[in-house]
Amino acid sequence: MPLTPNIPRLLDELSHLATISAHPAPAVTRVLFSEQDLAARAWLLGLAENAGLTHRADPAGNLFITLEGTDPTLPAVATGSHTDAIPNAGAYDGVVGVLGGLEALRTIAASGEKPRRSIELIMFTAEEPTRFGIGCLGSRLMAGTLTPDEARQLRDPEGRSLEQLRPAQYQGNLEQVSLITAHCSLGTYSHFLELHIEQGPHLDASGTDIGLVEKIAAPAAFRLTFTGTGGHAGAVLMPGRHDAFLAAAETALAVEKAALDSPSDDTVGTTGVIEVKPGAINSIPCHAMMEIDFRDTDLTARAAAISGIRQAAESTCHRRGVTLDWQQINSDPPAICSQEILAVAEKHAVELGYSHVRMISRAYHDSLFMARLCPTAMLFIPCLNGWSHRPDEYASPEAIAKGTTLLTQTLLTLASP
Amino acid sequence: MPLTPNIPRLLDELSHLATISAHPAPAVTRVLFSEQDLAARAWLLGLAENAGLTHRADPAGNLFITLEGTDPTLPAVATGSHTDAIPNAGAYDGVVGVLGGLEALRTIAASGEKPRRSIELIMFTAEEPTRFGIGCLGSRLMAGTLTPDEARQLRDPEGRSLEQLRPAQYQGNLEQVSLITAHCSLGTYSHFLELHIEQGPHLDASGTDIGLVEKIAAPAAFRLTFTGTGGHAGAVLMPGRHDAFLAAAETALAVEKAALDSPSDDTVGTTGVIEVKPGAINSIPCHAMMEIDFRDTDLTARAAAISGIRQAAESTCHRRGVTLDWQQINSDPPAICSQEILAVAEKHAVELGYSHVRMISRAYHDSLFMARLCPTAMLFIPCLNGWSHRPDEYASPEAIAKGTTLLTQTLLTLASP
Repeated sequence: MPLTPNIPRLLDELSHLATISAHPAPAVTRVLFSEQDLAARAWLLGLAENAGLTHRADPAGNLFITLEGTDPTLPAVATGSHTDAIPNAGAYDGVVGVLGGLEALRTIAASGEKPRRSIELIMFTAEEPTRFGIGCLGSRLMAGTLTPDEARQLRDPEGRSLEQLRPAQYQGNLEQVSLITAHCSLGTYSHFLELHIEQGPHLDASGTDIGLVEKIAAPAAFRLTFTGTGGHAGAVLMPGRHDAFLAAAETALAVEKAALDSPSDDTVGTTGVIEVKPGAINSIPCHAMMEIDFRDTDLTARAAAISGIRQAAESTCHRRGVTLDWQQINSDPPAICSQEILAVAEKHAVELGYSHVRMISRAYHDSLFMARLCPTAMLFIPCLNGWSHRPDEYASPEAIAKGTTLLTQTLLTLASP
Repeated sequence: MPLTPNIPRLLDELSHLATISAHPAPAVTRVLFSEQDLAARAWLLGLAENAGLTHRADPAGNLFITLEGTDPTLPAVATGSHTDAIPNAGAYDGVVGVLGGLEALRTIAASGEKPRRSIELIMFTAEEPTRFGIGCLGSRLMAGTLTPDEARQLRDPEGRSLEQLRPAQYQGNLEQVSLITAHCSLGTYSHFLELHIEQGPHLDASGTDIGLVEKIAAPAAFRLTFTGTGGHAGAVLMPGRHDAFLAAAETALAVEKAALDSPSDDTVGTTGVIEVKPGAINSIPCHAMMEIDFRDTDLTARAAAISGIRQAAESTCHRRGVTLDWQQINSDPPAICSQEILAVAEKHAVELGYSHVRMISRAYHDSLFMARLCPTAMLFIPCLNGWSHRPDEYASPEAIAKGTTLLTQTLLTLASP
């Protein structure tokens, strides 16, 4: 007899959280340590307290809400996601995993089941890169892939550091509680399972209830700065030009070609940022900056493609008399998900009569970093047209209900070995 | 015996005008109707008054400083240029023609020569497009190539109109003095001759004193808006993309190719502005806006090249599933300069022992529009490395002295037929 989460309550809470936003509905904006982010955190902890769950925070502002098991000395089973949202985003990305996870804990607590392992819900700090330019800040610090020293160097657009911005409740005793204690040791968790909207079109298009994520693609990001020679658009004849933007434009097309030519179907490459100076219609661009995002589930294929892009960029710049500065923003390895967790989830999906498919995640998730700490997997639910990071992002009540029900069953089984 | 302008005084005035700037030296920034532009205008009129010259303004803010001839009923000989400067520009573009022109008028007035025609110095409003996105605002209104209705529609980045921004002294009796009276009738001027730095490298590289401008290239400008489909850079696979920036990047390369392939050596094409939305490293651009500047002395070659660019853009967009909005910002015909004026200038250059060469202007100048009103030509002087629109723009005292001396002689001859 499966446990039955209280879906109307969960949907009410999802609706309420969407109202805690710096932009009016339907847009949702909650940037790390903004007034709205802090309000959302306080509200979430209030829900946990109402449900009789204990909670704590680490120095990075990751929040932990715990349903204690019968043997709390065992490594806990964890779930969770994020509640921060980029400007003008929607109401489901991250949030479904946090509030769905809370509903799972409450449902198990109310069911009379007595799992041996504690079950912990984690709300990760800054999965979105909005404030500091790097995503998954909380989970990177937990996993140790971002060092405390690196985290201290980060500055937001106004030049403020993470330690300056975090509110008093995450500062603890500054002598003792530095960012380093956010690092989580191996063996803290037995499993991590994140519920999330797909952020892609496949489940919605195929009418599938659940995606069982087997791999999380490996993202790498680069900032390329092209420096050429400016001049008046009328006065400098074509043969004498060293146009920084044209070098960038060729390189952006090389990024696309490298992704299309890759032997892996999962390779994606994107130039999402391009800025030129002086940026005047009658001036030849002397400067261009572009940012590339390149992902694959196959690290070898990704490395080969990136090497090809770099060669193309260098060749373009050499031909054009433009100099290139190639800077790596980040380069994370892919994660292979836990077949043990997926098998448990699949068994329950069959019992519950949910259609399901094994799939790949191509977006960044905190799971990518939690996979460094313990066996990890993800459950995807469909979102309309694959849209996300926009106000019309949408997951249906049925999809949320199925995802939360399956999460609840799977966490209970994993915690009751 | 040639007239001798007071070069130390002129150089002092050039240095002083460079200090009237919104950015610190060596940068010069004077945007139309900014505090600095108004201060420069007031200072210029003070110099004219000190020299005993009369002045007036038209409703567009063009300033006219007049040395009256013995027969003021004859069409006047005019010279002039602009004193506005784009952000972070230099101290010579436009300014040499205005202060050099003033020095010419003062020199003729002091010489005892009595020219029959009046000689008028014009300081044109907004040769630079900074505020309203369209250059040569004052001379376009004088020539009637920009109608008063079109001028009234213009808005600056804060949404303000030309009529809202112009100070009281240009408003006159609002019942009578609308922008339409800026229109200048044919027959007002007998000749127009503009002194200007080359803004290109040819005179400096060849060590030539004077460029006699025979043609002013025809500039055309376009704003292209590409609308594709956004999405998460990780989640949307390559075959399903409709990336607006990649369509723009291909089009920018097509602009370059069209200029290189043109049968005319004078064809130049530039993409100086590119903006993408949402402009995030992990988002596929759904929107891209680019601005193209395309110039030639040959209108047929230019039209063919632009048609080729448009076809390439449409084909790229069709292939990529991106929509294109193609908007013409302006499209001006080239100007053919007056051989009469050039012959007079050349004769004086020979007398003065100045090396000189016939050449083409590829930059926008108020002369392009004055050519609609009367026989027109330009005198170029070398500027270091052809640099302009930047703080290290530089013309030597010798170059300025030669240009101003030749301008003075030529204006006197043209005014004394």
